[in-house]
Amino acid sequence: MFIDKIKSEGLAHLSYLIGDGSQACVIDPRRDCEIYIEAARKKGATITHIIETHRNEDLISGAPILAQMTGAKVFHGPNADGIVKYAQTTKEGDKFTFGAMRLEILETPGHTFDSISIVIFDENHSKGAVGVFTGDALFVGDTGRTDFYPDKAEKVAGLLFDSLKKLKALGDQAIIYPAHGAGSVCGNNMANREFSTIGHEVENNPMLGISSREKFIKKKLSEKHYIPQYFSLMEKLNLVGGAAIKSILMPPPVSPQAFKSKDADRVIDIRSVTSFAGAHIPESLAIPVDMLSAFAGYFLRDSETIYFVCDGPQQAELAARHLARMGFDKIIGRLDGVVGFSTTGADIGDLPFVDAKTVKHRLTSTKEDWTLLDVRSQDEFDNGHIDGAIHHYVGHIENGLGDLDPDKSYTVMCGSGARATIAASIMKANNFKNVDVFLGSMGAWQATMQK
Amino acid sequence: MFIDKIKSEGLAHLSYLIGDGSQACVIDPRRDCEIYIEAARKKGATITHIIETHRNEDLISGAPILAQMTGAKVFHGPNADGIVKYAQTTKEGDKFTFGAMRLEILETPGHTFDSISIVIFDENHSKGAVGVFTGDALFVGDTGRTDFYPDKAEKVAGLLFDSLKKLKALGDQAIIYPAHGAGSVCGNNMANREFSTIGHEVENNPMLGISSREKFIKKKLSEKHYIPQYFSLMEKLNLVGGAAIKSILMPPPVSPQAFKSKDADRVIDIRSVTSFAGAHIPESLAIPVDMLSAFAGYFLRDSETIYFVCDGPQQAELAARHLARMGFDKIIGRLDGVVGFSTTGADIGDLPFVDAKTVKHRLTSTKEDWTLLDVRSQDEFDNGHIDGAIHHYVGHIENGLGDLDPDKSYTVMCGSGARATIAASIMKANNFKNVDVFLGSMGAWQATMQK
Amino acid sequence: MFIDKIKSEGLAHLSYLIGDGSQACVIDPRRDCEIYIEAARKKGATITHIIETHRNEDLISGAPILAQMTGAKVFHGPNADGIVKYAQTTKEGDKFTFGAMRLEILETPGHTFDSISIVIFDENHSKGAVGVFTGDALFVGDTGRTDFYPDKAEKVAGLLFDSLKKLKALGDQAIIYPAHGAGSVCGNNMANREFSTIGHEVENNPMLGISSREKFIKKKLSEKHYIPQYFSLMEKLNLVGGAAIKSILMPPPVSPQAFKSKDADRVIDIRSVTSFAGAHIPESLAIPVDMLSAFAGYFLRDSETIYFVCDGPQQAELAARHLARMGFDKIIGRLDGVVGFSTTGADIGDLPFVDAKTVKHRLTSTKEDWTLLDVRSQDEFDNGHIDGAIHHYVGHIENGLGDLDPDKSYTVMCGSGARATIAASIMKANNFKNVDVFLGSMGAWQATMQK
Amino acid sequence: MFIDKIKSEGLAHLSYLIGDGSQACVIDPRRDCEIYIEAARKKGATITHIIETHRNEDLISGAPILAQMTGAKVFHGPNADGIVKYAQTTKEGDKFTFGAMRLEILETPGHTFDSISIVIFDENHSKGAVGVFTGDALFVGDTGRTDFYPDKAEKVAGLLFDSLKKLKALGDQAIIYPAHGAGSVCGNNMANREFSTIGHEVENNPMLGISSREKFIKKKLSEKHYIPQYFSLMEKLNLVGGAAIKSILMPPPVSPQAFKSKDADRVIDIRSVTSFAGAHIPESLAIPVDMLSAFAGYFLRDSETIYFVCDGPQQAELAARHLARMGFDKIIGRLDGVVGFSTTGADIGDLPFVDAKTVKHRLTSTKEDWTLLDVRSQDEFDNGHIDGAIHHYVGHIENGLGDLDPDKSYTVMCGSGARATIAASIMKANNFKNVDVFLGSMGAWQATMQK
Repeated sequence: MFIDKIKSEGLAHLSYLIGDGSQACVIDPRRDCEIYIEAARKKGATITHIIETHRNEDLISGAPILAQMTGAKVFHGPNADGIVKYAQTTKEGDKFTFGAMRLEILETPGHTFDSISIVIFDENHSKGAVGVFTGDALFVGDTGRTDFYPDKAEKVAGLLFDSLKKLKALGDQAIIYPAHGAGSVCGNNMANREFSTIGHEVENNPMLGISSREKFIKKKLSEKHYIPQYFSLMEKLNLVGGAAIKSILMPPPVSPQAFKSKDADRVIDIRSVTSFAGAHIPESLAIPVDMLSAFAGYFLRDSETIYFVCDGPQQAELAARHLARMGFDKIIGRLDGVVGFSTTGADIGDLPFVDAKTVKHRLTSTKEDWTLLDVRSQDEFDNGHIDGAIHHYVGHIENGLGDLDPDKSYTVMCGSGARATIAASIMKANNFKNVDVFLGSMGAWQATMQK
Repeated sequence: MFIDKIKSEGLAHLSYLIGDGSQACVIDPRRDCEIYIEAARKKGATITHIIETHRNEDLISGAPILAQMTGAKVFHGPNADGIVKYAQTTKEGDKFTFGAMRLEILETPGHTFDSISIVIFDENHSKGAVGVFTGDALFVGDTGRTDFYPDKAEKVAGLLFDSLKKLKALGDQAIIYPAHGAGSVCGNNMANREFSTIGHEVENNPMLGISSREKFIKKKLSEKHYIPQYFSLMEKLNLVGGAAIKSILMPPPVSPQAFKSKDADRVIDIRSVTSFAGAHIPESLAIPVDMLSAFAGYFLRDSETIYFVCDGPQQAELAARHLARMGFDKIIGRLDGVVGFSTTGADIGDLPFVDAKTVKHRLTSTKEDWTLLDVRSQDEFDNGHIDGAIHHYVGHIENGLGDLDPDKSYTVMCGSGARATIAASIMKANNFKNVDVFLGSMGAWQATMQK
Repeated sequence: MFIDKIKSEGLAHLSYLIGDGSQACVIDPRRDCEIYIEAARKKGATITHIIETHRNEDLISGAPILAQMTGAKVFHGPNADGIVKYAQTTKEGDKFTFGAMRLEILETPGHTFDSISIVIFDENHSKGAVGVFTGDALFVGDTGRTDFYPDKAEKVAGLLFDSLKKLKALGDQAIIYPAHGAGSVCGNNMANREFSTIGHEVENNPMLGISSREKFIKKKLSEKHYIPQYFSLMEKLNLVGGAAIKSILMPPPVSPQAFKSKDADRVIDIRSVTSFAGAHIPESLAIPVDMLSAFAGYFLRDSETIYFVCDGPQQAELAARHLARMGFDKIIGRLDGVVGFSTTGADIGDLPFVDAKTVKHRLTSTKEDWTLLDVRSQDEFDNGHIDGAIHHYVGHIENGLGDLDPDKSYTVMCGSGARATIAASIMKANNFKNVDVFLGSMGAWQATMQK
Repeated sequence: MFIDKIKSEGLAHLSYLIGDGSQACVIDPRRDCEIYIEAARKKGATITHIIETHRNEDLISGAPILAQMTGAKVFHGPNADGIVKYAQTTKEGDKFTFGAMRLEILETPGHTFDSISIVIFDENHSKGAVGVFTGDALFVGDTGRTDFYPDKAEKVAGLLFDSLKKLKALGDQAIIYPAHGAGSVCGNNMANREFSTIGHEVENNPMLGISSREKFIKKKLSEKHYIPQYFSLMEKLNLVGGAAIKSILMPPPVSPQAFKSKDADRVIDIRSVTSFAGAHIPESLAIPVDMLSAFAGYFLRDSETIYFVCDGPQQAELAARHLARMGFDKIIGRLDGVVGFSTTGADIGDLPFVDAKTVKHRLTSTKEDWTLLDVRSQDEFDNGHIDGAIHHYVGHIENGLGDLDPDKSYTVMCGSGARATIAASIMKANNFKNVDVFLGSMGAWQATMQK
């Protein structure tokens, strides 16, 4: 009997290959699903079942794709807003057996209406559940967000309360296997640890400590989450089934001589923010490769063609994989670095970094035309910010530009300077002429100015 | 915070790379320990600590080797029979911290006097243990054997009872991470599953269900285990520290023209038993590659030189790895198959298989010179055998030959014919002229004769 | 500028990824063509062109499949018997440029009418060809067979003579890159070496030493080749384009309890011949995995469903890959070994091996009912055989059964016993009751009886 | 018979695993030599011989290390300046046989006194050499440098002329296998192609076209090469044998909080030059990872301790491997990026880039305190430079600082800006206060100003 966790970095998405003997089942497969076939191959097992714990908003499900590749059947919980075309509906109490492993379905709505949990029993040691796949209902240290149905906010928060009760009833001994780990946008306070049990969560997860349904609902309603615009695309695709990922993810190289920004709808600079600061393609959007999963979905439009500016092919391929999981497939080429491009005599941009002393100085000298712009989340801003700073969340900065004046000066900040660089790149592409970034940002400020 | 399980097939040995952030700790490393360095490399972490849950009898510890490769410190429990030269002693209550992960030592003697368990806490979610490395004290579905100190049998069984009590006190929610899975010779009834919790074991593990210390001791004393002779070598080496594995495990090929059995102390045929039956080198010992970990230790002598007869280089390398983990390093060459060897005109042996009908017939016709020899364990034999069969355990067959007559006929059987082929190869090498194997053995007998 | 050789073992098929900078071209891709994409990926290059040197008879071309995966264009020589649907025609003198690498097409018919060679020049060092892809026109140590057009035998042999002249004219310095290495059925006398030059071949390749067109033709006509029946399927598929290989090659395991020979059209035992001899599924066809490419094509029928009997999943997957390259896709399951199957009480077959002494004895004692059957190639048989042996080629043994009597006894032999086991398995499946195999065969005979 | 090329990027070092059947030989192994064992493993072959074509100056030989790991014997040519302790001497005419492959030694001094070439024959196709390992005597498109014995410059150039004559005498058909490809500092004009023949070189390699010994010597003497200081360390180590590379190459991570420049003798920033320009640790040396092999040897001192500033663990490990091959082993830690470090409030440096227009403007406005500094090689500078620029080679910039004034302003340039950034980082670390880099450098200048 085996449970293999397959993690997708960036999205912090957790999926599982499970089974016993020669028969295997995949829980919540991602779009690039060869990895499950390979994992099953290593065990000499055949994938016969695929179960989804809920309809994903943050990634394209691999279920219909893996089903086509393997001939496996797909199962999805009831009460989906639309009908999931590629799946059979599975309901509370349904059982699936793989050797001595028995799975039982538990309906656990709240995060979404169709959310289920999947309880694991061992037929040979059958007293009590061994574990449970909790999807986005219960994470290690947190619970799933319930802000996707604004007009039914109280209702779904209440449903989640009831679902958690069901999960608690499985007993302290049940190991939990959630669909996300720390770093996911599907929760705010997940532990940096992917193993826990119902018993440990009951003691340590603050949300499980709330015994009153009313208080729980109130707490959930007070959570603040942002919704990247690509979520709506994911929801649509995950009803009808997304297309398989193309076999070649590596964007073809474009020579410095041939590279023209205008040949793509969008140029994304996936290098580090310090590389972007040093030299970049004018008007390009800075999102370092490891921030793509969290931030690209706020800016990219479905079906845009994209050029990468990157450090090299491996980085570009990884970035293409991150975007493909989110449904952005049209990476039509890559430019390896900007040094070669600079030798063609082309214009190159830069983005100055400033330090805490400079920011302090600017704040104290009355400088009318200058503003300190904090792009962290509302929660972070509320928990403490530099006096005089104004706030716009990085993910919504495009909408926020209307409130700002392209002819004035801005220093953008966040926690470290990384998100600030994303925001600054957007501002520069929108003709803000005097933008720099506070490198070190809140961290440096606290370390130096608040001592 | 991460826990990576590293499994060694054959020995069914489980070891772990754990840690948080950039610092890592290895629990119970095996001898071929590059795998831990590579696993740490993937996480960008450095191995700084190595902890052994107990002194191993069934494999060479990798702790001193890994320590030399990494500069990490080694920790071992108290009360070792001798002093473990390469380790510092760690005692009940000692703490080790890796980022937010805190380990605490629990002394859990019984299987050995030096056995410890290592409890895992998360500093950020600190109510109750998240998990515990249980070594050979508690397995999934079983407990560690306590037959290594025959003169203190009751004492150590009692110690184990006390140790299990300590483990139970950690709470139902604690996940257990044992040092062995199903297939190990360190337990008899392990579940074919490597994940469980204290709570699930309390409900399902029959040994944890025994509440009386006395009854527990009685039950442990009634267990029957065999001790391969190489265990004593392991015990000695694991005090002083075994040598690192040599960098080239692949035994060099020997051409059919150059191959001579007498050039090695021992020829082991690691191919399938059906291949051995079809054609083999006279006097070679049949132990298929996947049975080496369980059976080679009964037959091989320390420092013997060994030739493999194999299907090819990959199989030979895997076999060499299995043996190296047990301290048998002198594989001086391999012969790839026997077909090439047969073209040199050399003598080739075979081993006939017989079926249930033939065995039935022989049993019913009075055949004085013929004996049915069952080589399964005493437990299996006691649970049911064919009338008229005599018993000698495969692992002790060399000692049993004195009771048998090389000039008479024997049909050897076990559960399927696999262990019987090992035994038959030993008998043939000892001049037993008329030996065949009951293919299908007890399985076929029950399927056909007992319908 | 790079040339990467990709070899397919079994078929001894050589294909190449070539190019300069970021643009790559594949010569003669095989059906399972992810390997070219991965090789290009490592170079950060994009595959834009695919060129076939000729229409293959021995494998399914990957050209149309790779074209679909990459968007590359496919080029094929002129004079194809039918029109190659998926390719553009390329003619003598056509040029292709990849960075500083220039390819030029040379029409070199003979092996087939559409055969081309592809000459490599370096624009930066442009005096004389650096190398040439010779397809099946010129191998290291041999030339391509010309027996595919029996009614035009002289014509095509003459065409090959002319083509070789063209190749010689490229100069001694040109490195040759052929489409096959030793072990391929596309030539008889290839060197066990895959690197050579025009100059070295002119001196050492006996066929290039023939200066008279007439003598060359005569020599080619005297060559003896066998044609596996699957060649005709390959020819057809390679006009229209074969389907992509399915993503899961690993045949699913079938439990011993569930396994029934009759559920598949064919049971192939891909284990070693000694394993088959020891114990096998009755009526199964013995072809060890490394002999599949050379021999399966004589026996298998298009669209047959197949079960493997194997040593385990890796061997089964390799075998499935070998067969997929030849167009046999319907491997519906595998049985891992026969020991487990034997425990169900099912019938198991065996195949006795005999040695040289026994054969000698049988030959000298007048045994009317017994025949020694040699299944090597006609060439080998003509070069020396045991007095009294009759001959039928292993590949055509099914046709030869009509000349034999199922009620008589046969000892089958070849060079070592391997091909004899294939033939013996066919005979046993056709109700020949008394069949055994001379293990060691001609090798053992010469080593012992002819001293 | 097989020849596998193993390439070490950076050094552009080519080594080879060759052999026939089960016996293998390695030509010119590099220090991290597990790769040869693994390559032999895949062929089921055993490495029994190691041959060095000459004593390397640019890398630590792996011969003594591989010999210890495998038990193989090492052979080295005669006339070494000192005695190579770990090798037997092999002389003109010596023969080595591996199956049908026969190697013959040809003494080919010039690049070094001990240089040999190794000619390959196929015993089964024995007319003429199939190929030849040419070491650093003959490259594709170039010949080895002969500037290592300044006082015997003419003598060794003449020796090389004689050696090339010997190589030419092998015949046009012989394939050449050199010890370096394009990018190596051991030659200036190598082709970007690693396959050629004697015949193709005779026609295309300008040095082989020189028929007069005198003219050849004159031409060699006119070549300009730089000698990194680490060459002398290599020469010493390669007499006595360097130590094996340590098993863990990944430098351990240092947290931003713990990082202090002063804890290491040297901080090397291996990120891209644009990253360095954006933000860097003050006084760090900029050498991007892919420039380390070519430039680190000019700056690093034997036994210095080193910190890396890098983009992450994989990049750091690759850099450590590059340096280890050159004998620099003491990488004691790495800092992943500088953004995290900046949040501690620490000082961060930057390096401004300027464009062609700015340089043009500065050149035309009389700016007394400003100098344009070109750090390309003397050859490149002589072939064309910007009027007004002064020259110091990047590799010797430390020595050149005495001619410059730390209080004046400098714009550093090269071909693109990359080498200029290395030089600028050295200048900044030496208290030059006003340094910037001309991004695009000569390329951008020619593209924009010279139109």
